[in-house]
Amino acid sequence: MSMRPIAFQPRQSIEQVEESTDLAPKFDDRGLITAVTTDATSGELLMQGFMNAEALQRTIETGEAHYFSRSRQVLWHKGATSGLVQKVVQLMIDDDQDCIWLRVDVAGGASCHVGYRSCFYRQIPVGENYAAAQKDGQVSLEFTETQKVFDPKEVYGDAPNPTLL
Amino acid sequence: MSMRPIAFQPRQSIEQVEESTDLAPKFDDRGLITAVTTDATSGELLMQGFMNAEALQRTIETGEAHYFSRSRQVLWHKGATSGLVQKVVQLMIDDDQDCIWLRVDVAGGASCHVGYRSCFYRQIPVGENYAAAQKDGQVSLEFTETQKVFDPKEVYGDAPNPTLL
Repeated sequence: MSMRPIAFQPRQSIEQVEESTDLAPKFDDRGLITAVTTDATSGELLMQGFMNAEALQRTIETGEAHYFSRSRQVLWHKGATSGLVQKVVQLMIDDDQDCIWLRVDVAGGASCHVGYRSCFYRQIPVGENYAAAQKDGQVSLEFTETQKVFDPKEVYGDAPNPTLL
Repeated sequence: MSMRPIAFQPRQSIEQVEESTDLAPKFDDRGLITAVTTDATSGELLMQGFMNAEALQRTIETGEAHYFSRSRQVLWHKGATSGLVQKVVQLMIDDDQDCIWLRVDVAGGASCHVGYRSCFYRQIPVGENYAAAQKDGQVSLEFTETQKVFDPKEVYGDAPNPTLL
């Protein structure tokens, strides 16, 4: 695969960034842009990660989701270890170009290193439900997925858990 | 509305954070947690923002989306200026509890300060589409929304544009 650099445009004006067809992404002081990934079919939020310029470039060129792993500080081709590659159906960028939205098809149907389909498998009760559930301002998360799609130990073996406390 | 503080739990172990019902959100060194907001009906990604502890607390208590505005450095009750309040249908938290997912109903059907329904109104061609469209590695964004839902000047008047270059 040729890796001719994609020409990101310099950010020159609000009108250019918001209203033009220029691809002028804003990488933060760590060189990262936020990436939000949803299931292209169900609309479910699968994960939220980050891309550096190379990850965005490779995603665009290959049509497969690449991220930058903050815990491992490396380019991360999602699915390279687990086989759960994310095929990009649509790649969107937001108004001020500091967030990328990936609509993906996931091979195997799972995205979460814990083994669930989505990284978002617990809900927080809100409003009246919070008022009814809370005790002294303390509230319990509610699991919305009860069964894991895969066993992380089988898939990842002894690879370090990416969750940081 | 009583603002008794919600008792966020201290983060003690990966198992607690990933597998328990403890609400133990991870705020970054700026005191912020990423928030991703989708339309509860369509699954469309409406916006990506940030919450501080107070914004998360108020969202949980009121059932209406609150964020922390990084450009203005203030608590931001979404819709307070525009009237486009986001009613939270479901509030989810991810595996390592550093990202909140809001599934919302939006009064008026618009979320973007530029006037579009979603903040994500442009796509980046990927894979074969990128290869066909690029010239010298340069690629044009493609608008997926062609009509604004409202006129930002009418709604926001002279309020400063939140986009930062």
